[in-house]
Amino acid sequence: MLEQIGAFDPIPREEILRRIDGLRSRMVEGQIDFAVIFQNVDRFYFTGTMQKGVVVVPVDGEPMVFVEKDIERARSECPINIVAIKSDKEIKDILRDKGILQGVAGFEFDVLPLTVFERLKEVTGVHRYADVSSFIKEVRVVKSAFELEQMRKSADILSRVFAKARQIIREDAREIDIDAELTAEGRRLGHQGLLRMRGLNQEMMTITVTSGFTAAVPSCADVPIGGTGVTPALPQGSSLKKIARDVPVLIDYGGAYNGYITDETRAFVAGELSEVFRKPYEATREIIADVLTHARPGVDCTEVFVRSHRIAKGAGLEDNFMGYGQGKVSFIGHGLGLEINELPVITGRHHRLLKEGAVFAFEPKFVLPGHGAIGMEIDLVVTASGVERLTADSIDLVYF
Amino acid sequence: MLEQIGAFDPIPREEILRRIDGLRSRMVEGQIDFAVIFQNVDRFYFTGTMQKGVVVVPVDGEPMVFVEKDIERARSECPINIVAIKSDKEIKDILRDKGILQGVAGFEFDVLPLTVFERLKEVTGVHRYADVSSFIKEVRVVKSAFELEQMRKSADILSRVFAKARQIIREDAREIDIDAELTAEGRRLGHQGLLRMRGLNQEMMTITVTSGFTAAVPSCADVPIGGTGVTPALPQGSSLKKIARDVPVLIDYGGAYNGYITDETRAFVAGELSEVFRKPYEATREIIADVLTHARPGVDCTEVFVRSHRIAKGAGLEDNFMGYGQGKVSFIGHGLGLEINELPVITGRHHRLLKEGAVFAFEPKFVLPGHGAIGMEIDLVVTASGVERLTADSIDLVYF
Repeated sequence: MLEQIGAFDPIPREEILRRIDGLRSRMVEGQIDFAVIFQNVDRFYFTGTMQKGVVVVPVDGEPMVFVEKDIERARSECPINIVAIKSDKEIKDILRDKGILQGVAGFEFDVLPLTVFERLKEVTGVHRYADVSSFIKEVRVVKSAFELEQMRKSADILSRVFAKARQIIREDAREIDIDAELTAEGRRLGHQGLLRMRGLNQEMMTITVTSGFTAAVPSCADVPIGGTGVTPALPQGSSLKKIARDVPVLIDYGGAYNGYITDETRAFVAGELSEVFRKPYEATREIIADVLTHARPGVDCTEVFVRSHRIAKGAGLEDNFMGYGQGKVSFIGHGLGLEINELPVITGRHHRLLKEGAVFAFEPKFVLPGHGAIGMEIDLVVTASGVERLTADSIDLVYF
Repeated sequence: MLEQIGAFDPIPREEILRRIDGLRSRMVEGQIDFAVIFQNVDRFYFTGTMQKGVVVVPVDGEPMVFVEKDIERARSECPINIVAIKSDKEIKDILRDKGILQGVAGFEFDVLPLTVFERLKEVTGVHRYADVSSFIKEVRVVKSAFELEQMRKSADILSRVFAKARQIIREDAREIDIDAELTAEGRRLGHQGLLRMRGLNQEMMTITVTSGFTAAVPSCADVPIGGTGVTPALPQGSSLKKIARDVPVLIDYGGAYNGYITDETRAFVAGELSEVFRKPYEATREIIADVLTHARPGVDCTEVFVRSHRIAKGAGLEDNFMGYGQGKVSFIGHGLGLEINELPVITGRHHRLLKEGAVFAFEPKFVLPGHGAIGMEIDLVVTASGVERLTADSIDLVYF
């Protein structure tokens, strides 16, 4: 029956085994004897199922995928063996019988709440532990052919949504009206319904439409342009503001297919682009052209950032680059995959070489306080010799 | 400028002070000397702003609302004093100068990841700590007049979305098509854009449309009817399945206005309701009628659950009540507010007396494996003498 519900691709068994092997080799380096994986996205990545449970990966020996519910669904999704359990006690008994949990346990320190951590320590009976989250994030950096295929399907939803945007965008519509129509369009195309951002307090709207000054209000989120939202209780995303003439409308949309997120931004303008936005628009184009020619495996992420920053500075726009004042962020790009804040982060601060198979969103944006913002965002796959966009869409400013 | 972006009501200063006092009196009982509040919803509840930062509430002395960004927005939203900070070090210095952080610190153990906890311990310089999350949740149980007003506005969005559902629901539409149209309708009415569920791995779709068997697939989420979703990577919510004749379509929708969530379910059917669903439908009606007459302040939540369970059992539907097999959940209701899983939980296991001002969703549902499910969900406010619905909408099965 499950074939009626979605149109997703199941994860091949070999791929699951490769992912687990990738984690294990990092665990060897990090002297972790077994990983206890609880977060839903991490469990999905290593098993193909997100059904309720916990996964234990010994550095050698078979991974144990404990599932509480739904067993039938988990078995149909996960190509490796599943252990059906009804309670924490059953897990404890099984682990004790196998006698495998000796040594240092790795937990996801970056997301695991204290109460859950205490529960998992009790269940696994461990006394020594370390953080395994950085190893998990490292494994996830390089996308497989299967994952790139999912990302291209995600990008296809995104492309179609931006095509729809060109048809429906109109003066005097509220940001939220455009938001509603485009979110619905994506959903009809099979969008999974929400985007994931790793970490407490990290929330991500599927779409953010900003128009004029709402793009220039500093966001509490770690993004250059977050929008104001419609309430202090969720201070990001589209607002009730109406679209006006001559100032850019930015649409930042996240595709999401079979777990995989894409994230691009397009700029639109009713009438003519105000003079104040023209130089930043040209600088955006120049930064995009530059990354497309120089980014490749082995290039340091800080170099990508520094080159972009230099172009912005050369145009006299250093203060406006990637936000203004309090709203400035320190990065111009972020890794994409099952979460919207994966590695690598493209910033001037953290050295990291680009790897073939990594996917990142690259988003030169300029904020002009009081006026608004202009910029673009494209998704790039690092290939053997350079970078390649996930979509073939034009990123030219759209006049309507 | 901010008045253009939303239509929300600001939280009155007296209300903020009352909330903080409520927390303090519980901290006295719990022997906690100061609370360190980091989660965005908790910070919003106690300050009126969700801008980036951390809140420290001493058991006596002024609360300190540290905000990193955006200061201007935070000041416009929060009616008590804000301390602008640029780094953790500044917080540390201020706290050291004041010399106030002596004794036991209370942290939100249920949501705080290990790495954030370590950072906050370092920032506050504390050595002794306890869990303050249960106190925070207790304070949030009883809604003020202001909060009930927000919830009624949230319920108004929900009512209008269900009114729209009656117009657009149609045979052969896919669940996801109805989902897309109704989500858009809510958004146009000012819906904040997403629902919040407290805890790691707790994700909540704004709407779930199920039709026939998709309502009977056990969910990995702790809900009686979660839907299948369109991918193993997000295994809940509406699917691509088409709506068929004679089996119930359930629409479970969450309104969300100015942070406050409402959550109701309506049942629809094209043609005639299949015989197999008729008795469960009558039992649903009976359970709803029962709760409306007997729930009131002082009644134990377990009693509410047991009475409902007794009606289900009397109808010979014990096995189908609140799920079937692995998919069965142990509750028939859950508290509502800024999060969809607040207290009280209406279950047979945890004794707790209903309090005036508490708001909960009450959702008798019956799952018939392979066939589908039928049920309803209404939101109830506990008044001085009973319970009152948040909407006046008919909950009759809708034929289309």
